[in-house]
Amino acid sequence: MKPNIHELLTLTQAMDLKLPSVPPLAQPQGKELARWIDHTILKPEATPAQIDQLCEEALTWNFATVCINPVFIPRAAKKLAGSQVGVCTVIGFPLGATSTAVKVAETRWCIEEGAAEVDMVIPIGVLKGGDFEPVFEDVQAVVEAAHALKAGVKVILEMAYLNRTEKIMACLMCQRAGADFVKTSTGFASSGATVDDVALMRAVVGEKMGVKAAGGVRTLDDARAMISAGANRLGSSAGVKIMQQAAAGPEA
Amino acid sequence: MKPNIHELLTLTQAMDLKLPSVPPLAQPQGKELARWIDHTILKPEATPAQIDQLCEEALTWNFATVCINPVFIPRAAKKLAGSQVGVCTVIGFPLGATSTAVKVAETRWCIEEGAAEVDMVIPIGVLKGGDFEPVFEDVQAVVEAAHALKAGVKVILEMAYLNRTEKIMACLMCQRAGADFVKTSTGFASSGATVDDVALMRAVVGEKMGVKAAGGVRTLDDARAMISAGANRLGSSAGVKIMQQAAAGPEA
Repeated sequence: MKPNIHELLTLTQAMDLKLPSVPPLAQPQGKELARWIDHTILKPEATPAQIDQLCEEALTWNFATVCINPVFIPRAAKKLAGSQVGVCTVIGFPLGATSTAVKVAETRWCIEEGAAEVDMVIPIGVLKGGDFEPVFEDVQAVVEAAHALKAGVKVILEMAYLNRTEKIMACLMCQRAGADFVKTSTGFASSGATVDDVALMRAVVGEKMGVKAAGGVRTLDDARAMISAGANRLGSSAGVKIMQQAAAGPEA
Repeated sequence: MKPNIHELLTLTQAMDLKLPSVPPLAQPQGKELARWIDHTILKPEATPAQIDQLCEEALTWNFATVCINPVFIPRAAKKLAGSQVGVCTVIGFPLGATSTAVKVAETRWCIEEGAAEVDMVIPIGVLKGGDFEPVFEDVQAVVEAAHALKAGVKVILEMAYLNRTEKIMACLMCQRAGADFVKTSTGFASSGATVDDVALMRAVVGEKMGVKAAGGVRTLDDARAMISAGANRLGSSAGVKIMQQAAAGPEA
């Protein structure tokens, strides 16, 4: 299905003038916070032993997922089998600049090997060039491939490189393409998640879609601020520290 | 074919104690230098218009290739058709942490769309974990796929993350796997090409294999230093500036 790009651009203009307001999310309490966190290691030099440790921590704290590079999916899926912790991975990551066909092939491989959620990156430069239709089709193709295999899709917009209208337009395209979440950042750009970006994303996509804040979420205060702004999933390599802070706090 | 990992580890130990010496390369003169340069834009926010400009510059200066992300291959291949300038692209880039199957699929897609050379990234963390056989097989699978389609393969080791024995072992594995070049860096790690790393790579792989220096090669002096150390290909986003400096110098 082709998107009506003109209609989305008109809606982008309207939202640029006045964002819809959405009610705030309730903060998760105590150990529940762990279910909002993708426990993450994506640095290229991460070793198999570090992946094993990540999985063990995820089992201990009951994080939503471990978020890892594709090469480690078989290993992590085995360690997490039978638990509540899913495997999340990344597609076309972190540049978003491979072809749609390759992103779809990667999506299928990852899900078949055990990924329950895939975080794909849009072709950022194509969006910035104003070629909206191929960006929409890129997202849509990955969403279709993932949903056919019962996995969820988060779409990383890499907000650091986008201006305000590009941010709004990208959120709208992801929504129309059927993605489950929009996600702020890869963690590899010049900056990561900001409270302002999360609030913008939540306003644009409304209450029914997910918003994931990632990149620079390192403390409980960061986590709380992102959730207050509208995030319902957090990607962080500091999940254990965040949960320890939560456990030590007045709410524990 | 399975590699003899034990033999390669023994050779690595020997080379760690004493590197073979190789004769220096002759510096290319005048406009010939352009044939040693992959004119590069890999940043994720690069637009189609920037790719077009890169191609025009490559035609003007007669660079060896333009080095671009896969999504732009069809566009660049069309602009460069019939010229001496090839299309070079990147595989599993820049983390090297997707699966071998996906790297092979990406390699085939890229070459079928017009790439003449592919620069793949090894699974860095797997190497660092001491799992050598899957690293060898990853390189070998991409080499076989690319060579079957008459394209060349450079293997990016991301030297910034490797210790000395890992660097030597990686070079030896790439050589045994039949790769055409070893390449220092993606340009996305904590540091790029160094003269010491290039010299080490050249010593390990000998005279018959290529060595590409990339990441931080920004001036004619950088280029000359890398070639003196043993590089016979340079990846740079400053190719035009380097050639202008070469044209302005005493050799022009």
